[in-house]
Amino acid sequence: MGDPAGIGGELTLRAWMALRGNGHSFVALDDPQRLRALARTLDLDVPIEVVQGPSAARGVFAGALPVMPVPLAVRPLPGRPDDANAPAIVASIERAAALSLSGAAAGVVTNPINKAALYRAGFAFPGHTEFLASLTNAVNRQVMMLVSPDLRVVPVTVHASLRNSIAMLTMDMILAASRTTAAALRDEFGIAHPRLAVAGLNPHAGEQGALGDEEVTIIAPAIATLRGEGIDASGPWPPDTMFTRSARARYDVAICMYHDQALIPLKTLDMDHGVNVTLGLPIVRTSPDHGTAYDIAGKGIADPASLIAALALAAELAERRGAPEGRQSLAGRKP
Amino acid sequence: MGDPAGIGGELTLRAWMALRGNGHSFVALDDPQRLRALARTLDLDVPIEVVQGPSAARGVFAGALPVMPVPLAVRPLPGRPDDANAPAIVASIERAAALSLSGAAAGVVTNPINKAALYRAGFAFPGHTEFLASLTNAVNRQVMMLVSPDLRVVPVTVHASLRNSIAMLTMDMILAASRTTAAALRDEFGIAHPRLAVAGLNPHAGEQGALGDEEVTIIAPAIATLRGEGIDASGPWPPDTMFTRSARARYDVAICMYHDQALIPLKTLDMDHGVNVTLGLPIVRTSPDHGTAYDIAGKGIADPASLIAALALAAELAERRGAPEGRQSLAGRKP
Repeated sequence: MGDPAGIGGELTLRAWMALRGNGHSFVALDDPQRLRALARTLDLDVPIEVVQGPSAARGVFAGALPVMPVPLAVRPLPGRPDDANAPAIVASIERAAALSLSGAAAGVVTNPINKAALYRAGFAFPGHTEFLASLTNAVNRQVMMLVSPDLRVVPVTVHASLRNSIAMLTMDMILAASRTTAAALRDEFGIAHPRLAVAGLNPHAGEQGALGDEEVTIIAPAIATLRGEGIDASGPWPPDTMFTRSARARYDVAICMYHDQALIPLKTLDMDHGVNVTLGLPIVRTSPDHGTAYDIAGKGIADPASLIAALALAAELAERRGAPEGRQSLAGRKP
Repeated sequence: MGDPAGIGGELTLRAWMALRGNGHSFVALDDPQRLRALARTLDLDVPIEVVQGPSAARGVFAGALPVMPVPLAVRPLPGRPDDANAPAIVASIERAAALSLSGAAAGVVTNPINKAALYRAGFAFPGHTEFLASLTNAVNRQVMMLVSPDLRVVPVTVHASLRNSIAMLTMDMILAASRTTAAALRDEFGIAHPRLAVAGLNPHAGEQGALGDEEVTIIAPAIATLRGEGIDASGPWPPDTMFTRSARARYDVAICMYHDQALIPLKTLDMDHGVNVTLGLPIVRTSPDHGTAYDIAGKGIADPASLIAALALAAELAERRGAPEGRQSLAGRKP
């Protein structure tokens, strides 16, 4: 569901319209009443059918959007988040995680939430990802990867100020993120020998210490350790030249030291089709790479491209996990 | 000249081949012997003609590359910088600055240098730009702007570690860079009402202080001050979404808080045509947006696109300075 005051609902309706014929199905964990009202308001021809679970959803999907009911406390107004609906938002995440853990669903795709509203309601996690890690017994193993048609990026530090991101960066964090990423690219993305390009932190990757020493003290040693483990890691690369077309052709993922080092090139190249994938969980989890967009919620102009890409990628990852070698590697990480 | 062991010489030869028919002329401050040898080695049909000054160069340019001699101490080997040639490299910069200050030349275009080699020879400036600021009595007034067909960016902090860039950032630095940029875009780039988009420093521009407070304490107050002066400055914008195509359409220049925040989007969008322009000097100065590239020097594969773009932009800026209103605004800043 995500935040019902955001653009999630209309994206769900449009994603069904786009995907109803393509062979995969999804079930919305949402309030059927509000989705019906939204479809009417936006004049979208989306029949809503209440179902008991994902297996029932499969037969319904071609003709209607299947919905497992998560009733809202109050009717949502576009752009006006209501704290009273926070428990339903949380319940929708919990149920999606449970369905995926049990194998009833192949994975979870989350619509955007507004963290501030959930915090006020007592939500104790920095975001969706940490909550899902807790629900699936994988705390601190989650790694965020952003995927677009042009580029995959993993920010080693994520939601902290730039100053704190630098202060908290350690060799162990780079190692953990890189190992999880290399395993996921191999086992879930079908890349036999993934190539990791590790970014420097400083301009020109520090110029041998003249412009910062983290490359010498933290990043290069991490790369050496990874290479010793048989992981094809290279770097530290100068951050400004590693995202050009010719540079991108030489790696499968960029391991980035901070949020914007990863997100600026990804969004500059392709704002609309970015997907956020959580690696390191025992379940498949993707989400669109945008927020609740209150300013345009309910207007029918939100672009469903990122949610559609998130659904398609989740299906692709789930299929590969379902393959014998995928199941095997998954078994070892199940909680 | 730049570093004669780098790709500068072959770029100069190729730039002449590309520009000989286009109406502008340039004169190389370089060693005629080494350029002749280089043309022979690379099998480039570039006649070299020694001239006494820029005015003589104009008549020569259509038929030969005009060169004002700056003799090297030792014959340069591609990819092998020799400290003995450092004085000639410095002399070439000094003469170019003097020719521009006197009005004999319309501007300076600098080929890349190797700072480490110059430092060993006693060069006391962080780079070309600071040296030119000193030579033209404009110390600490220089502002670096990178220009590509898609984007203009100004990094407020430049050659410092990321940690130090954050530590040194002040409201006054943002104000000074923004004022110089706004004036240059108006007077030299012909943009009547330049729009400045000022980036945040932190992820999501700090989320109202939750992810860093520099937006609240430094950047937003700077924007308010600029707007009070009649400068069309907006922001602080979330760094990751301000370089998309639709976002770029809403401003003429992005004022960035650190080197890679500016350079990553610029080079990701267009690696080959970026030009480095120094604003705030009494002379026109541009340079290609790449280094000496020792690894490919002398092989004849270096791409002259950025030097050609730098020459073309210098000519364009010089023409606008030459116009009555340009001269007027220039006169006020002459040393």
